[in-house]
Amino acid sequence: MEQGQEAYSANFNQGHLQLPPSQRYTIGSSLPITTSPFNPTNSSAPLVTCMDARIDPTAAFGIPLGAAHVIRNAGASVKDAFRSIVISQQLLGTREVMIVKHTCCGMLTFDNETARAVVLKKRGEIAAQEVEKMDFHTFRDLEIQLKKDVQWLRIKAIEENIRFSGWIYEVETGRTKRVL
Amino acid sequence: MEQGQEAYSANFNQGHLQLPPSQRYTIGSSLPITTSPFNPTNSSAPLVTCMDARIDPTAAFGIPLGAAHVIRNAGASVKDAFRSIVISQQLLGTREVMIVKHTCCGMLTFDNETARAVVLKKRGEIAAQEVEKMDFHTFRDLEIQLKKDVQWLRIKAIEENIRFSGWIYEVETGRTKRVL
Repeated sequence: MEQGQEAYSANFNQGHLQLPPSQRYTIGSSLPITTSPFNPTNSSAPLVTCMDARIDPTAAFGIPLGAAHVIRNAGASVKDAFRSIVISQQLLGTREVMIVKHTCCGMLTFDNETARAVVLKKRGEIAAQEVEKMDFHTFRDLEIQLKKDVQWLRIKAIEENIRFSGWIYEVETGRTKRVL
Repeated sequence: MEQGQEAYSANFNQGHLQLPPSQRYTIGSSLPITTSPFNPTNSSAPLVTCMDARIDPTAAFGIPLGAAHVIRNAGASVKDAFRSIVISQQLLGTREVMIVKHTCCGMLTFDNETARAVVLKKRGEIAAQEVEKMDFHTFRDLEIQLKKDVQWLRIKAIEENIRFSGWIYEVETGRTKRVL
């Protein structure tokens, strides 16, 4: 892997990549149904997905280097990503948000109460106090939560004419389906 | 790109990747100085980096699919990443945190006051109220902020024997340097 990273930087010849994502000005009138949330002719940043180790957004969604902000957190939570989305839109001029959740997500396997109990049991009371008020943003149903996230962001959005889409990546097959 | 994504899923043959990152149990006694934060013989997840469009963590840091949680937000803020880090450690058993900030980061170019003024000017008072209390987690010096982030997480850490490292990725060269 060190050799891999050496090779990456040795062959690094991207010229000067601008700070704002390169795709921000190329928005079409409607997003076609594709097998990938990222469509270079129609899309713009940011893309919100899960931190899950089984997802490689660049390869799975076909994002060229320099083209899109990629925000990742446990469960692809838009509430958790909100600060980054605001910066992406207000400071760096992006006009679309793509949310990609995935099958077999860890966030389907516990809830706030369970998480707090795990911390208390494993780490004791002082650690438990740290997470007493933490919302872990877990969920019970993947598609329902994806719709809720898009809805939350639509209401919350502080920019006009932002396009939203919601996708599910299948960790079993490497495919991505559009849900909304 | 659609063709690229089709090819990715058509050639997808990863077998069954487990939900917890595969590198969590392979921690050595010390992290050697390398050109990449991710070292498969010594490392574990999660890796926190910026949402910046110019960073491809898989390629730049040599992370095999399934090996590490990748958390990304504006500026690679550990405060913003804290929920995900807690889940990675407490629910999925990871034992190390790698923080990778980068040169030419957008977060060096503004502050809370500027960001709020931009929103007020562009979007008006209702939008400005949305971000009135938002901490944008901007910073003035890359290395100082990296050290502050590691320090904050060390104090905050709710798990024992966690190893921390701080890195800077150079968007100009594709190289990654260890800072601490």
